[in-house]
Amino acid sequence: MDEKLEEKLIAYRRDFHKYAETGWTEFRTSSKIAEVLSTLGYEVLLGKEMIEPSAVMGRMKDEEIKKHIDRAISQGANPKWIDRMDGYTGVVAILDTKIDGPTTALRFDIDANDAVEIEDHKHRPYKECFASQNEGAMHACGHDGHAAIGLGLAHELIKNKEQLTGKIKLIFQPAEEGVRGANAIVEKGLLDDVDYFLSGHIGLGITVGKIIAKPWGFLCTTKMDVTYTGKGAHAGTAPNEGNNALLAASSAVLNLYAIPPHKDGPTRINVGILQAGVGRNVIAPSALMKLETRGLNHTLNQYMYDKAVKIIENTARMYDVSYKIEKMGQAVDCTCDEELVDLVIKQAKDVMGVVEIEREIYFGGSEDVTLMIKRVQDMGGKSVYILLGTEIAAQHHNEWFDFDERILKIAVNLFENLIQFLNHQK
Amino acid sequence: MDEKLEEKLIAYRRDFHKYAETGWTEFRTSSKIAEVLSTLGYEVLLGKEMIEPSAVMGRMKDEEIKKHIDRAISQGANPKWIDRMDGYTGVVAILDTKIDGPTTALRFDIDANDAVEIEDHKHRPYKECFASQNEGAMHACGHDGHAAIGLGLAHELIKNKEQLTGKIKLIFQPAEEGVRGANAIVEKGLLDDVDYFLSGHIGLGITVGKIIAKPWGFLCTTKMDVTYTGKGAHAGTAPNEGNNALLAASSAVLNLYAIPPHKDGPTRINVGILQAGVGRNVIAPSALMKLETRGLNHTLNQYMYDKAVKIIENTARMYDVSYKIEKMGQAVDCTCDEELVDLVIKQAKDVMGVVEIEREIYFGGSEDVTLMIKRVQDMGGKSVYILLGTEIAAQHHNEWFDFDERILKIAVNLFENLIQFLNHQK
Amino acid sequence: MDEKLEEKLIAYRRDFHKYAETGWTEFRTSSKIAEVLSTLGYEVLLGKEMIEPSAVMGRMKDEEIKKHIDRAISQGANPKWIDRMDGYTGVVAILDTKIDGPTTALRFDIDANDAVEIEDHKHRPYKECFASQNEGAMHACGHDGHAAIGLGLAHELIKNKEQLTGKIKLIFQPAEEGVRGANAIVEKGLLDDVDYFLSGHIGLGITVGKIIAKPWGFLCTTKMDVTYTGKGAHAGTAPNEGNNALLAASSAVLNLYAIPPHKDGPTRINVGILQAGVGRNVIAPSALMKLETRGLNHTLNQYMYDKAVKIIENTARMYDVSYKIEKMGQAVDCTCDEELVDLVIKQAKDVMGVVEIEREIYFGGSEDVTLMIKRVQDMGGKSVYILLGTEIAAQHHNEWFDFDERILKIAVNLFENLIQFLNHQK
Amino acid sequence: MDEKLEEKLIAYRRDFHKYAETGWTEFRTSSKIAEVLSTLGYEVLLGKEMIEPSAVMGRMKDEEIKKHIDRAISQGANPKWIDRMDGYTGVVAILDTKIDGPTTALRFDIDANDAVEIEDHKHRPYKECFASQNEGAMHACGHDGHAAIGLGLAHELIKNKEQLTGKIKLIFQPAEEGVRGANAIVEKGLLDDVDYFLSGHIGLGITVGKIIAKPWGFLCTTKMDVTYTGKGAHAGTAPNEGNNALLAASSAVLNLYAIPPHKDGPTRINVGILQAGVGRNVIAPSALMKLETRGLNHTLNQYMYDKAVKIIENTARMYDVSYKIEKMGQAVDCTCDEELVDLVIKQAKDVMGVVEIEREIYFGGSEDVTLMIKRVQDMGGKSVYILLGTEIAAQHHNEWFDFDERILKIAVNLFENLIQFLNHQK
Repeated sequence: MDEKLEEKLIAYRRDFHKYAETGWTEFRTSSKIAEVLSTLGYEVLLGKEMIEPSAVMGRMKDEEIKKHIDRAISQGANPKWIDRMDGYTGVVAILDTKIDGPTTALRFDIDANDAVEIEDHKHRPYKECFASQNEGAMHACGHDGHAAIGLGLAHELIKNKEQLTGKIKLIFQPAEEGVRGANAIVEKGLLDDVDYFLSGHIGLGITVGKIIAKPWGFLCTTKMDVTYTGKGAHAGTAPNEGNNALLAASSAVLNLYAIPPHKDGPTRINVGILQAGVGRNVIAPSALMKLETRGLNHTLNQYMYDKAVKIIENTARMYDVSYKIEKMGQAVDCTCDEELVDLVIKQAKDVMGVVEIEREIYFGGSEDVTLMIKRVQDMGGKSVYILLGTEIAAQHHNEWFDFDERILKIAVNLFENLIQFLNHQK
Repeated sequence: MDEKLEEKLIAYRRDFHKYAETGWTEFRTSSKIAEVLSTLGYEVLLGKEMIEPSAVMGRMKDEEIKKHIDRAISQGANPKWIDRMDGYTGVVAILDTKIDGPTTALRFDIDANDAVEIEDHKHRPYKECFASQNEGAMHACGHDGHAAIGLGLAHELIKNKEQLTGKIKLIFQPAEEGVRGANAIVEKGLLDDVDYFLSGHIGLGITVGKIIAKPWGFLCTTKMDVTYTGKGAHAGTAPNEGNNALLAASSAVLNLYAIPPHKDGPTRINVGILQAGVGRNVIAPSALMKLETRGLNHTLNQYMYDKAVKIIENTARMYDVSYKIEKMGQAVDCTCDEELVDLVIKQAKDVMGVVEIEREIYFGGSEDVTLMIKRVQDMGGKSVYILLGTEIAAQHHNEWFDFDERILKIAVNLFENLIQFLNHQK
Repeated sequence: MDEKLEEKLIAYRRDFHKYAETGWTEFRTSSKIAEVLSTLGYEVLLGKEMIEPSAVMGRMKDEEIKKHIDRAISQGANPKWIDRMDGYTGVVAILDTKIDGPTTALRFDIDANDAVEIEDHKHRPYKECFASQNEGAMHACGHDGHAAIGLGLAHELIKNKEQLTGKIKLIFQPAEEGVRGANAIVEKGLLDDVDYFLSGHIGLGITVGKIIAKPWGFLCTTKMDVTYTGKGAHAGTAPNEGNNALLAASSAVLNLYAIPPHKDGPTRINVGILQAGVGRNVIAPSALMKLETRGLNHTLNQYMYDKAVKIIENTARMYDVSYKIEKMGQAVDCTCDEELVDLVIKQAKDVMGVVEIEREIYFGGSEDVTLMIKRVQDMGGKSVYILLGTEIAAQHHNEWFDFDERILKIAVNLFENLIQFLNHQK
Repeated sequence: MDEKLEEKLIAYRRDFHKYAETGWTEFRTSSKIAEVLSTLGYEVLLGKEMIEPSAVMGRMKDEEIKKHIDRAISQGANPKWIDRMDGYTGVVAILDTKIDGPTTALRFDIDANDAVEIEDHKHRPYKECFASQNEGAMHACGHDGHAAIGLGLAHELIKNKEQLTGKIKLIFQPAEEGVRGANAIVEKGLLDDVDYFLSGHIGLGITVGKIIAKPWGFLCTTKMDVTYTGKGAHAGTAPNEGNNALLAASSAVLNLYAIPPHKDGPTRINVGILQAGVGRNVIAPSALMKLETRGLNHTLNQYMYDKAVKIIENTARMYDVSYKIEKMGQAVDCTCDEELVDLVIKQAKDVMGVVEIEREIYFGGSEDVTLMIKRVQDMGGKSVYILLGTEIAAQHHNEWFDFDERILKIAVNLFENLIQFLNHQK
């Protein structure tokens, strides 16, 4: 990789950072990515071309999407790409060598967080003028870096494409935050022909240059929005005429937290947000709960989910309020394939900047890439998820988040090495 | 009424007091009553002859009934009567003059309370040796007096029966406490041909000799026992395998008390007893709740009852426990008929010992005689419920309860006067 | 009253309606009122001159007040008056005859509701172009009429002032909705020298032209905002590190609704709004509850308030969250003085347009004028609150609300008659 | 060990089984043990001589203890020993060689379970006539076997005492069920001079003859009885006058189960028993909750305990009920010392009947022997807890429980071998 590409990587990352877009609103981001990839010569799929709408979770209403499209265009998105997206974000680039060989897919998530970036000169993005221009959106998890890595890799592959066989798919996934976006790509069938699936995450409190090949302990999780609709009434003169959605929700909350722990391992539930009622003296006609369940594996998460649904439904019946449960996100557990883990360890040794390699680590969080990993494995392919250490200025999701950009080049090199091995001309 | 009868009244009352029997176990009491009435020449119906078993509420299991029968016999009950009762208590005496005339029914309740009588020389029943011999049963409401009044009246009516027309029914009702017994007599059809229905209560904090003709504000009430059956499990090693009936009941309790008040008047709910669980380290497999609803009128009580059932059922579903709801008692509201209220006021004036007469008073409690009153009125008859003041030594249901026995004679005279008027030979 | 004044009344009302301002933001309304009264020759007190800031309840933050001031000026408020107000709204006009005589005060509330006025040609204010221009504010209770009546009365009194003695105070009160504003005027001491206090309300489902002199059954009420502040934590990886304010609030809600009813009469509690949490996967660090208690009288409301506070405080301790309870409004019960009730009945007979007069009616709602009524009575004066019937197009507080403007003239005439009697030259 | 001793072991076990006594009521059992040990020549401490009363948990009231003493005497307990016990159960036998050497202590628990033994000919104790004669008490955990092993070992040690040095303490502990008894022996100081501490448990689903030397994963636990005392009131006529202990307990239960899980490992809470109220129509004046907390280690159990206490206390304050928290039992975690684990493995090989030896196993339960283990280790000694496999007829604590008595001899031989090694004459 030449010097110029490194500069380009940083430029890409900072551009995405500056125009941060949260899940399902990455119109400018997708447009820019599509522009680069298309220019490089990749076949490009955008928005509805690579997203199965019926499998989309946690997307906002069309009116709100419309506003984000307008903003994206005002911030430089090319309306040509926007049109092709048809309301949905994300890009897939395909490099088909037409030579017999495996299909290898890589996933880069591209969305920002619901966060307000700090305005302080000690914060490099602010000081160096690439802090987010979009209120309430900030790349505080490093997906700006992931997107940049994907583009850098696209450059490299094209340069060396004569050495490759088979097919390469670069998946730029929207809406990883809230584990919302992967499912719609999986359901579109884009992973069904994949032999090797590579993915990863930068940061996570790991030293810069340290590579971990096999994180384990991905928590299964389900995200839900629950709406209760009751009936308002004057709280003083006709309390019996209301169907109290706020009281129903409060009762549900207590019972949800009281779901018994499971003997087989950790389980979690959280009602993170509760919004109910319209006025102090009105029996509350509506309530919204945003909640999530987790479990060490599918069985444990399903145990929590089933118990939660039972509580939500029967509390609604108890209070004569109607209910709606919307699944807003989902991630599963996963295990990286040893063949690829071994390969990562071997190839990482040849990457400049890699200072330490570790085989395993407990992950303990949730990631919707697990849905892709699982689909590839279910279809007979192999998957790996690599932790790419880099110093971070603050915890992920924090308003002070920033990272050491040296990891960008390391990551591109590592992924390139892996593909060169997997899709190499014999 | 001669002196001798007054002595007899006191003797009856003290005998019943000494061998106090709680609701549905009044075997000795019923046997004694039947004996007296039969000897006087009344046609007598006992137990199952005047009780509709399918309408019985709040009766204990047959094994326990058996024990009470044995005790009754050991305390002097005549097995002949016991046999006829066939497991159910209560007596109806009928005096049929065979002369055209109205049917007049009177109701006297005969059961004792679940209370332990005080053993103290300041307590007359104890000092004069007629305190309850039966542990956990005490006449602390005055029903011993009611039964005595019924028997005294029976004596008087027989003496003067040539002056009477029509038919007289003296109903000695079991299990008024907990408003359990009246329903089964009503459902047997014994009130269906009644033209005039007379009833009343002694005591209630009213001066001795004061008569109140028209109490109002009887609260409708429903009594229920709710059983939750879940599944036990070891609380440490397999908490997820239990279905926690104790937790389900606790959740139900909170939601029951949170039923909104009704704009149209007072409502009440109470879970008076909750018993759950088998061991500290076992997920509780069972729970029992004894509860009641009340309302100023039928609509309000029904409102509370329906809400309560909805909570009980859906909480059970929420926790995967099965539930059983048993109705244990019931009373309704009622309004005395003006014709009889006027008559009471008129006749009371001629009764020796009556010192004051008042038309109306707010009652505020529940009584299952209301079911009889309502049935009579529904069939075209007229009803009245008379408060018969008498000094009491302590609040009703208190372990120190006792009353001034002078009211017994006054009551007999008042009822006799009323019948002489209603069923008089023209 | 001449024809021209009637036109003026309607013009005033429609102007206030068009520039509706909710409680504590009535800057334009107050400015217009001050302008009229000052021009007529009244001594005028504005904002902080007639409001005790430390007794203000339910006012928004200064930043928000600032925005409303800017809007008021842009809609024609005179900055001279705005400056004198010093951030607080409301006007008092004083007519001091300097002749010995009683002090009579009248109260007119001037705030709009938090409502969005319907945009439909069947709605007269919309059709005739005086619908509210201010989003989220609408005169849906008739206070625009009250303010107009106050101004109309001001005109009349000045015209006939030679016949008057004593002192007249016209109080234009802000923030009656939510029962927030009266307290701060009472605490300023403006009612302390008042001999007669007159007030009233138009509409309320009473026929146009019908006057009721003595409504009773004002519910005492207290309005509170409760804030819980806990500690956020990641719901998956560190649930034990959070202090869950959402769960604490839910638990408080259930226990609040379970406060037992009171034997002495109706009581109410309502948590009308609950807003908690920051993100689905974060233990909620904060919660806001907007609630109110009510009771038939002061004792019953205090019973509910004390129980509620006990629950709120101890639930906070249970969950290690800190709490803040802010009193947002308050009203008491009241009884109109018979002397003034008699006078209203007498004087109303001479008012053109009055078609029916009734002495009493059950009110059943809450009004913060009760605080003024009570203060006047406590200081030895007499008070009355008159219901002034007029046809309404929809329920009060409804988006379709409108009223028959004929009541404006009737009300002015009635109040004028009363003052002419009370403050007449002998 | 001779044949005769094996018979004796079985006889001891069956005698204890037949006269099963639950925790703190083992008067006959203690008396028999003291008799045997004293006859063999041991110095014997009984009841209050080896129990610190102030550290006793979960003991019943003196009146009830008295009844059990009477039963014990009627079943053959020697009043001489009973007198020395002074109301407390348990025995310690001391063999002091007066020769320099280590002090070795062994613990055998002797109490039965709260269970009703099955009466069925397929159940050997019933068929062979040694089923429990004491209603509600059954040796369903194998402590009858433990006591027999202790006595068998006492026989063996005396026979070979010339080979021993130092001091041997045989501790027959009452009230292990509910983890109640160990604490009071520890607090008496009996473990403070111990160099080696040996203990174990038979059964547990392990093959007969299999020995496991180092169980791990003992859960820390705290057992509590919580009493709420409120105020009764008539639920219909004066609901506001009560302080509802049943409602308070129900609210506490919900909040207790909602204590968040801990990131560092499994935690548990269970309210196993809830008993509240006195009558259906009375606001419940009292409630009793029997609960327990658990955690993988001391920190986690303390986390649960502290949260629970906070909920219990503040719920009481919320409902104006007084509360009492009584600690009813306690166990901690523990780790066996490697030196003794190695020794067990080595010595077990020489024991006839031992068919398999395993080093480690996950235990997952709670045992109050852990308090003794911890005290010995805290004072510088070493401890071990050995699982002694034997076939069981049903799960521990089940009404069908029985075990293969061949383990008795194996256990005696293993313990004897260990002591012969530890306290051997050099």
